[in-house]
Amino acid sequence: MKIDVLTLFPEMFEGVFGSSILKKAAEEGHVEFQAIDFRQYATNKHKKVDDYPYGGGAGMVLSPQPIFDAVLARVEKSNSKQPRVIMLCPQGERYTQTKAEELAREEHLILLCGHYEGYDERVREHLVTDEVSLGDYVLTGGELGAMVIADSVTRLLPNVLGNAESAVTDSFSTGLLEHPQYTRPADFRGMLVPDVLLSGHHANIDAWRKKESLRRTLQRRPDLLELRELTREEEAWLAKLKKE
Amino acid sequence: MKIDVLTLFPEMFEGVFGSSILKKAAEEGHVEFQAIDFRQYATNKHKKVDDYPYGGGAGMVLSPQPIFDAVLARVEKSNSKQPRVIMLCPQGERYTQTKAEELAREEHLILLCGHYEGYDERVREHLVTDEVSLGDYVLTGGELGAMVIADSVTRLLPNVLGNAESAVTDSFSTGLLEHPQYTRPADFRGMLVPDVLLSGHHANIDAWRKKESLRRTLQRRPDLLELRELTREEEAWLAKLKKE
Repeated sequence: MKIDVLTLFPEMFEGVFGSSILKKAAEEGHVEFQAIDFRQYATNKHKKVDDYPYGGGAGMVLSPQPIFDAVLARVEKSNSKQPRVIMLCPQGERYTQTKAEELAREEHLILLCGHYEGYDERVREHLVTDEVSLGDYVLTGGELGAMVIADSVTRLLPNVLGNAESAVTDSFSTGLLEHPQYTRPADFRGMLVPDVLLSGHHANIDAWRKKESLRRTLQRRPDLLELRELTREEEAWLAKLKKE
Repeated sequence: MKIDVLTLFPEMFEGVFGSSILKKAAEEGHVEFQAIDFRQYATNKHKKVDDYPYGGGAGMVLSPQPIFDAVLARVEKSNSKQPRVIMLCPQGERYTQTKAEELAREEHLILLCGHYEGYDERVREHLVTDEVSLGDYVLTGGELGAMVIADSVTRLLPNVLGNAESAVTDSFSTGLLEHPQYTRPADFRGMLVPDVLLSGHHANIDAWRKKESLRRTLQRRPDLLELRELTREEEAWLAKLKKE
């Protein structure tokens, strides 16, 4: 897979693309990251990438020309037939794991990062295939969103994750939040590990974990319980937990 | 404000802390960022930061000792009375702009990043004041979440944003998504700017923008319309838009 990021701040990506699993995935050839300054595609004399909005008002708007030409150059260079051109913006659909799974099946992603400026609407209408927002909070630019997409998509590519890392992903697939975890020492400055986990009694440990997983989900994310079919045992526990 | 990040990958933060508004805010003394490798606080011989989970199971768990000692060292060094110790984790509350505004009033944030491993529950119970998740997607670690918090909080600090940048924030405060924006040229490769924006008729431009803002919100984020009181004019437009 190729992931191209078009940004005015390519240097922001060095640390993230150059560390941990993204670095390893690139070194092993599973993915190719490029952060490209789209200013270099501006054809005007001063390499300006923005201009005043038609109709007046505060703020500036990113001009269509550098963005169109940067995207077209990446598509041509990659010889990609159906690239996904993804605009990071507050008006976009909220990013989810389902979207990450969808994007992980593509061959070429082009991520478009504005930086405290609006996009010219023609970019949205004629160039972009997806508009994505991380959540309902205001960020300075699309760069952190592009990193989130790059990370969440790359870890879904075949052969990227080892066993240790994929175990963590699996904890999500139960549809419940994870139960509490403990490691040594059993007594850390007077804070103790629950007895059951030290008991060696596997059936009890398993039951404790399932119940704590339910409890945490009930307390923090009751919406997840509605999305999931519960077993009869889980229903009984849940009824008890609700009474506590 | 001080923002300390405890992570096993401090180098991931260089690009983000060293660019754009975060860089400027730090240079001007509005905020002090530090990314600290908490492995250096491990007291065992091999500087190990994780161990097997009690009760068995796949994956490793971050040990309490290095994290407790790293947090306590930062608190002591900053002489901070009530630091917020924020754990990035999938089980946390979903991050919102309201949370960013709350955190922007603090003096010292300590952001705790796990990396594809669980935390020992005693960290959650006895050390952490907040648990935060970016959204319902799986990331390799808490680092991108810490960057999102650092960015969204820093831009809310007094005197950090100039006029150009704060104008963009303001577009959120209407409670609606922003209307389409256009800049020159009026004809870009056959793609045209709407006539009304070229008309110079300010009342018409204003009405068009309000209506398009409503239209986009209705199409993409109808939930926002329920959170907001509409004017009588907006109600009428909305009724019309729904019929189209």
